Amino acid sequence: MKVVILAAGLAKRMRAKKPKPLINLFGMPIIEHSIRKLKGHDIVIVYHNKEIKKFIKKRFPEIKLIYNDKPEKENGWSLYLAKNYIDDDFLLLMADHYYEEDFFKCDGEFDKTTILVSKHCEDADEATKVKVNGKKVIDIGKNLSSYDYFDTGFFYCKREIFDYIERMKERKKISLSDVISLLAKDGKVGYKLISGKWIDIDTKKDLKKAEKIVADSILKSEDGIIARSINRKISIQITKAIVKYDFFTPNIMTVVSFFLGILSAIFFFMNLVVPAGIMSQICSIVDGCDGEIARIKNMKTKFGSVFDALTDRIADFLIVLGILFAYGFTKLSIISFFLAISASIFPSYVYHLTGIRTSFSGRDVRLFSIMVGGILAYFSKEFLIYTMIFIGLLAYIGTAFIVYKFWKAE
Amino acid sequence: MKVVILAAGLAKRMRAKKPKPLINLFGMPIIEHSIRKLKGHDIVIVYHNKEIKKFIKKRFPEIKLIYNDKPEKENGWSLYLAKNYIDDDFLLLMADHYYEEDFFKCDGEFDKTTILVSKHCEDADEATKVKVNGKKVIDIGKNLSSYDYFDTGFFYCKREIFDYIERMKERKKISLSDVISLLAKDGKVGYKLISGKWIDIDTKKDLKKAEKIVADSILKSEDGIIARSINRKISIQITKAIVKYDFFTPNIMTVVSFFLGILSAIFFFMNLVVPAGIMSQICSIVDGCDGEIARIKNMKTKFGSVFDALTDRIADFLIVLGILFAYGFTKLSIISFFLAISASIFPSYVYHLTGIRTSFSGRDVRLFSIMVGGILAYFSKEFLIYTMIFIGLLAYIGTAFIVYKFWKAE
Repeated sequence: MKVVILAAGLAKRMRAKKPKPLINLFGMPIIEHSIRKLKGHDIVIVYHNKEIKKFIKKRFPEIKLIYNDKPEKENGWSLYLAKNYIDDDFLLLMADHYYEEDFFKCDGEFDKTTILVSKHCEDADEATKVKVNGKKVIDIGKNLSSYDYFDTGFFYCKREIFDYIERMKERKKISLSDVISLLAKDGKVGYKLISGKWIDIDTKKDLKKAEKIVADSILKSEDGIIARSINRKISIQITKAIVKYDFFTPNIMTVVSFFLGILSAIFFFMNLVVPAGIMSQICSIVDGCDGEIARIKNMKTKFGSVFDALTDRIADFLIVLGILFAYGFTKLSIISFFLAISASIFPSYVYHLTGIRTSFSGRDVRLFSIMVGGILAYFSKEFLIYTMIFIGLLAYIGTAFIVYKFWKAE
Repeated sequence: MKVVILAAGLAKRMRAKKPKPLINLFGMPIIEHSIRKLKGHDIVIVYHNKEIKKFIKKRFPEIKLIYNDKPEKENGWSLYLAKNYIDDDFLLLMADHYYEEDFFKCDGEFDKTTILVSKHCEDADEATKVKVNGKKVIDIGKNLSSYDYFDTGFFYCKREIFDYIERMKERKKISLSDVISLLAKDGKVGYKLISGKWIDIDTKKDLKKAEKIVADSILKSEDGIIARSINRKISIQITKAIVKYDFFTPNIMTVVSFFLGILSAIFFFMNLVVPAGIMSQICSIVDGCDGEIARIKNMKTKFGSVFDALTDRIADFLIVLGILFAYGFTKLSIISFFLAISASIFPSYVYHLTGIRTSFSGRDVRLFSIMVGGILAYFSKEFLIYTMIFIGLLAYIGTAFIVYKFWKAE
């Protein structure tokens, strides 16, 4: 469906060099976060600042741009300028707000103009409040004496909203709140409570909070203990640094992580156990980036996750084979190898069978153990055996744990 | 919902010792096939023959039994006897018919009495025909001059059907067709075309056809080439022989197959390569039985399929480890082992990731190759290496093939 993004506001509080929508939020302009989440929609942006035009033309040439020469007439007027490009219901949002994914999931389901509201707001004084009665919004504004929710600046609009702006056309300022307020008086505005986070980025402090929200949203709830406590902290910084480059697609990062894994295996084959171990942990950290980039840039694909899973398994197999070659072939080392190699796939295999994971038998813990084992092997080769046995047992315990849980659930 | 099974018919054509519903069809009485597919429903059986009563009481004590002392009054009368046990819509079917799963999927979805009809019939002369107009049945009977479908003897009934039988109560014979015909005259009968197979088992020839239908229905469409051309032919005979014993649950058969796999591994460890190879193929054949029993007895569980997948992987890992020990440790044997062991899980892993299988890289081909390799290893140990490399390459080619297909599809 069509989407109107209002980007013609005059920044009042944040004295940055750039217009607000272009301010860097986690490696990407604020506005780009929303644009990427709107993949598949037909976007119209109303702007005033020429830098915004330049940015959009270069990065998203398919987006329709509309110039607002009277930004002081406020955002209701900005919206009105998009009138001729809208022929049906549409989404409306603010270019300088960050919205989590939840917001973008509710298109095409409302029978009247609907405000996506939230119970939370980072700056309640500055926020627009919403008063409701039953299923309808009865009032909206910054200074309501009593209110139920906060207006998030994200709307599902019926085309009739333009008729209401038309009536106010001669006013000096036409704020969107005033327009919605008028619609609400006719009982034409509903609301939908969204639990996802959002933030209107007005100050440097807001920007910091927004960075935290973005970082949280690209974490995986199913991360293992090492991923959560070590790997993610680093991988997120890498992602933040490279997310602006188109070259670093999720699949490219999968390949990079794969090669780091191969490098670790080669070091083991060459008996360089310390660099091999460290490289295995680096591989594990970088392995987080593909998913993070995919989530932040809305580039998730099924092929990507299969490709990631497969390359992870192959790299892990080769690393364990490298450990065996570094140690040499004895009955014990072969059996340890056997344990470790099945460990390299069982937790993931069982996860795909049952949908259940543990936090202690995943790849993060495995590759971390290999780093520790590799370093200790500098002092005694036997640690290579211990490492293989350790990750093997961990995986089998994890698998037994999952199977038991699955059996109980059924 | 409630289900009425009519089992009081007098066998006219098949001169068997047993009443028709108890005749052995693929190791189970005909009636048991339907009873098992009706798991979760509340079944009422109208019978005449005491052997039926005895069988049901013993095997399915929770089923309500109703005695019909006038079987010569035909099946409309049989149904009438169930009247007091029915308080709402119900399913109605014949105890001496075999129906594929499709039939049992359509409960609770019709607004009038509905005949499940078919375009196919094994014995068109004897069959009851159905004439329709739009969404309604307009006539039903054995001797219609023109007709659209065959009556399968499987109905979704509204309770009003009993009122219609009531009106015919004094007749000498009340056939179900006559009852339905009367309902149809009032426009109260719909129909639903079912594509699944069904058969009214009247003669020895019908029984043979029915056996074929059952056998086909428990095959898996995704079987590999060895499974299809060799293993299934044997496993189906095993299943047929043991399906009547409650002891042989699908999970028990999984355990049996697992132990055969372990036995194969032990033989390899003991350097008994020929019995080891043969045992691996036997394990592969028996591995078919768990799924077959689960399908035929409607005992599929998610845990069962996870349990099967996991034990298969562990058995295969150990068999390949056994092959390595039988050969001894050299760089080449370790690398071949590495190939073979990843081969033992990759095709299944990738299947669970993508939903795609190949017919040449599955377990059936792998264990068959191990049998061939084991036998040839009697002449030269080198064949153990060749076998490991062969199954390794097969799996990697299969995996590459699947990933390519998946990538193309996306």
